[in-house]
This record gives sequence, C-alpha cells and structure tokens, in this order.
Amino acid sequence: MLYFDHNATHPLTPAARAAWLDAVERFPGNASSPHRLGQRAEKALDEARERLAGMLGCKAEEIVFTSGATESANMALSPYAGALHSAIEHPCMREATRGRGREFRVSSEGVADLVELRRRVAVGRPAVVALMAANNETGVLQPWREALEICRAQGVPFFCDAAQWVGKLPALGLGECELVSGCAHKFGGPVGVGFLKCRRDFPALLRGGPQEDGRRAGTENLPGILAMVAALEEAEQRIAAAGDVLVGQRKDFEARLLAALPGMRILGQGAERLWNTTAVLMPETPDCRRRWVVVLDRLGLAVSTGSACASGKEKPSQVLTAMGIAPEEAGRALRFSAGWETTPEDWERLLAGLVGAAREMGG
Amino acid sequence: MLYFDHNATHPLTPAARAAWLDAVERFPGNASSPHRLGQRAEKALDEARERLAGMLGCKAEEIVFTSGATESANMALSPYAGALHSAIEHPCMREATRGRGREFRVSSEGVADLVELRRRVAVGRPAVVALMAANNETGVLQPWREALEICRAQGVPFFCDAAQWVGKLPALGLGECELVSGCAHKFGGPVGVGFLKCRRDFPALLRGGPQEDGRRAGTENLPGILAMVAALEEAEQRIAAAGDVLVGQRKDFEARLLAALPGMRILGQGAERLWNTTAVLMPETPDCRRRWVVVLDRLGLAVSTGSACASGKEKPSQVLTAMGIAPEEAGRALRFSAGWETTPEDWERLLAGLVGAAREMGG
Repeated sequence: MLYFDHNATHPLTPAARAAWLDAVERFPGNASSPHRLGQRAEKALDEARERLAGMLGCKAEEIVFTSGATESANMALSPYAGALHSAIEHPCMREATRGRGREFRVSSEGVADLVELRRRVAVGRPAVVALMAANNETGVLQPWREALEICRAQGVPFFCDAAQWVGKLPALGLGECELVSGCAHKFGGPVGVGFLKCRRDFPALLRGGPQEDGRRAGTENLPGILAMVAALEEAEQRIAAAGDVLVGQRKDFEARLLAALPGMRILGQGAERLWNTTAVLMPETPDCRRRWVVVLDRLGLAVSTGSACASGKEKPSQVLTAMGIAPEEAGRALRFSAGWETTPEDWERLLAGLVGAAREMGG
Repeated sequence: MLYFDHNATHPLTPAARAAWLDAVERFPGNASSPHRLGQRAEKALDEARERLAGMLGCKAEEIVFTSGATESANMALSPYAGALHSAIEHPCMREATRGRGREFRVSSEGVADLVELRRRVAVGRPAVVALMAANNETGVLQPWREALEICRAQGVPFFCDAAQWVGKLPALGLGECELVSGCAHKFGGPVGVGFLKCRRDFPALLRGGPQEDGRRAGTENLPGILAMVAALEEAEQRIAAAGDVLVGQRKDFEARLLAALPGMRILGQGAERLWNTTAVLMPETPDCRRRWVVVLDRLGLAVSTGSACASGKEKPSQVLTAMGIAPEEAGRALRFSAGWETTPEDWERLLAGLVGAAREMGG
C-alpha cells in the first residue's frame, strides 16, 4: 500500500519509536513522585520542554503538553467568550468555540483574507483570533505572521493551530504567537500527544493535579512527549537539509499530473503550499467522489478525500466551500499528502495510479 | 531500585509493550481515513472497544477512549451543574466539579459513609454522585455497588472513578454504573490513555471531529488503546489466578511490620483494601515526612507519601484529613503499592528497608 495520507496521520518514525521505547525503560516512575525515579522522570520532562521551546522560539514554561491538537485547541479557546477565526479552520478549532465563533473569509486560493481580518479585528474587537499555519486539506500556507501583527497592534490574542506546519516547515517563530498548538502524530511522533504554547498562568481545561504548572492535570505522558520531541528534532534537521527539493518534487508531480489529466484542477495552485500536500479536483466522471478513493485504494494507493476528521461526514468540506467550490465539484476532491519516507519513486507511482484510475473511471 | 509506587504509575508490562509495538506496525493509518489502512485501524478500534466493554460488563458503544482518568473525570462531570462526592475522591474528580461539589464523609477507616450518602441523596437530589471504587492513597475499597443502588433508587446518576480498581480487582460489574473511569498506566498500560463508560449520547468535553460517536474529538490513540486492553486482559487473568494469595501476602507483610515497628499504624487496617496497597503512619521521630521518603530512597526503596498527584503540594492529604488524621501525623504517612511484577521477596526487602530506615531515623 502506497501511503499518501500523512496529513491524516504520519506513521511513527524509527527515531520516535526508539525514543518511546527508551523512555519506558529509563523512566518507569511518575514525574510527580517524590523518589529518585520520579525525579528522573521530572528532569527528563523539563529537558523535553526546553528542547521543544527552543524549536518554537518561546520559553519552556510556556509549553503545556496535551493529548493532541484537539485538546490544545479546546484548551486554547476555553477561556474566551468568543473567537474570530478563518473559514478554513480545522473542526477542533471551529467546534471549540462552542457556537460562539465568527468567521473571516479566505480567497479562492484558500488564503486568509488579511484585509477582512484587519477590518474585523479593528471593528469587532474579538476576544481571540485564530488562524491555522497551514491548511490540512489543501496544504495552503496561511499568513499567520501578518495576522499576528494585526492582532498584536490591536491587543488581541492570536491563536495559531500549527498542527500541519510543525514538522514540515521550521517551527521557529511560531512561539511568538500567544497560543500555538501542535500534534505529534502529524510529524511522525506517537498519537495521543501534543502541545499548547500559552502563557504561564493560562487556565486549565483538564483540572485535577498540579501538573504542567497547574495548567493541565493528569500524569504526564513522558514516553509520548520524548518521542514527539525526538520526531520533531529529526524533522527539523530534514527540513533544513532538504531546502527547496521537496517543493520542487511536488511541483514536478503537479505539472505532470495536469499534463496527463487536463480535466483536473489543483486547489490553491497559485498559493504557497506545504511541500507534502497536493489537493485536486479530479476530472468529471459519472461517479461520486467515494469512487475515486475506492478505485485508488484497489490500485494500492491510500489517499484521502480531505480531512480525515471530517471524512466520516457526508457534508462537503467547509474548507472547499470557503474556497468557492460547489458541492458537486467538492465530491471530486482528493488529497495526496506525503511524508518523510516518501521517495520520488512514490510520487511517480502515485501519478501512474491516478492516470490508471482516471482511465478506469472513464475520465 | 525496589519499586513500591505502582498506584502512582505501573511500569509498562511486556504484554502492553508488545501490543503497542504491534499496533504501530500493523495500523499506521488514521481510523477516520477512507482507505483500507483507515478501515483496518477502525476495525481494530472497534474490537478493542468490544473487549474492554466485555470486561466491564457494558455495551461497546458505551465506551469512550480518553487520554486518561483526569480527562475522563472532567468529561464525566462536565454536563452537571454540581456533584455530591466522597471526601476522599482524587483531585481530578474534586477539581472537575469546578467548585460546585459537595462532600459526604468517610469513616476513620476511610470507607464512604452510606448512611450519610443515602440521606444526602434523598434530601439534596444531587445532579450526580461520585464515589471511587478503591482509594489511591490507602487502597481502601469503597462500597460502590451499594452507592450505585442508593443512587439508582433515587434516579441520580452515579460516577465511579475506578482508576485504582481496574486491573487489580475484577472489572466486571463496574459497567453497571452510569459513569466509570479508568486509566491504562495504573495497571501496566501506557501513560496517556484511559476510558470513560458513559451513555451513547453523552456530551463531548473535547470537541472537534466526529470520533467516538461525537463524544470525544481527536485522532484515536489506537496503539495506546490496544496496549491498555492487552494490559487489562492480562491483569484480569492474573487476578483470577491469584485468588486470595495476594491479599495474604500483604496481610503477612503488615503483621510483620507491626511486630517490628510497634509505634506505627496501618491506615484503614480494619477495612477491605486492595491487595497491593499498604498505607501507614510511621512511628514518631524528630523528622518531617519528607525524611522518610528520602531515607527510604537512599536505601533503594521507591515509595510514596500519598497521591503522586498531590505530593507536589505541601498541604496534608485530604484523604488522610477526611479519615481524621491530624496534620502533624499525616506528615508521617507513607504508601507502599505493589505491582504485578512484585515478588514475595520484594515485600521482604521492603520490610527490611523500613526497619533499617526506622533505625536510621532513631525510631
């Protein structure tokens, strides 16, 4: 099975696996326990916090470890009575507003509209503004630095859901946002662990013990945290080493795909996008979108119809709707998302598979 | 280091480790993804849910997988405007009430007072009642079945925090409570995974994607869940095989400890307790309680002063206070909690260590 669904989940990397196994051996104690085994675990936790903070560019005490991006988003928004967020945010952000969110729009390329954001922030004085760093369905990079400046100028806190950015592009600088969330399994760490960068006195969503400086109760998932940090450190090295090669690889794939299947369209084609993500509208055929995934699956290609978190629903993706794509077109949307182990040959095979599937679909 | 702090965290068992590693290999996909790898993950998740439900005695669709007992308790209480709970609940239960909780008392042996509970339920009509199955600090078993009946008779939902019971005593029957929480790392599963048994339309605390039938958003921690279920299945087999041997072992240790150190006292001595837990007040010495832990640590014994979740705080344990133990006595409290790998020789070494420590402390 050729796996092109890394934005849903990135398989555990060998480095993360090794870090996890090492941690369960070396740190059997609870970091809150008073004995040596507890202290050792606590020290390892502190070091992991320092390492992650260093990569984000913030203080260690601003990092709260969570169970993943969904918890982080829920926690980030929990103290606020409302939020202004882009129309392409992840369901975990959207739902975390508990019906008190308002949207600002994106362009047809899927990029947040900063003119509208500036106006809405100045006029509406939202309690918090949320804009993701990179979109999960299209890979389109968002102008989060500019959005942060707009919010900062008006004294409005800014939350950046960086779940799809972290581990694919350099994390450094994200720490300047008041709130930043990330998720280990999106970059090769284990499922069930993530983080929220927030101020030291940020209120807890999960209450109980005094862990995480009182901001997140519950025994710290030290093996998960150490595996997440190991995965991210390796990803950062790969990012630095890869330069523009990876984006070039994706662009080459897209050019050849467009040439092979002229009836198709690449979403956010003109926008800057993650090196790993290509979202497309496949050529029109008599079949619904489910078929494309099924046909590709039979050809040994694991791809997605969009967000894994939303793909159980039958409603058209809110991301595509926000980009002005009609429901009947959205049914032909596919997302290909590569990972660190994806080779140029894998992109070749994906291309060949898509051409074959189109033939099968009569496209 | 001899580890007698399993109530804080039980080291990962080989069975759980193997299940985790197997899962990351076999199920690299996201259970929400539309392709074969996603479907395989979803199927494995469904099977794990069935297996856990079978052990608890409830329906599979009543199980929600969470990040641990703290999240489960916060979720369990989140829809209720108030709660009546015992005076010895874990901080995660206590804090999850967000200041809207009321306490009912326990006896000096640390057992919930059912007479008071019955009266308070009839008179106060609480939105929900919470009683843990076994206390984390003393190991004292609570009359949760009777409490459930009292609540059922009045139509009040009953929440049983079973974090310390599950994996040490048979789980079967707990599923009859409206709400039951458990935590993998308390019985040899990985940290960062737990469950809440609740009704199918229970409202989500963590919102976002449609996972867990809309009750808990976020990518499912499949390796953690499979490892938790594997650890629990093994524990259930061990429970069935052990019979009364384990309680006998603990009682033998306690009898010899009392003989060796007549100045000490066993907490909840007359009450039924978990086979793995002995909580004591050490003999009076000029030193504060920190010293006992430190002296024992130097002797190679990892024991606790009480709840790991509370031991960072300097306040006396609320559990001990509820049992009528004065703050100056509570400073001499120690908790010894064994695990599945603890041998009779380990109990011997603990006894010898305590006698040695008492000598060192001038006791």
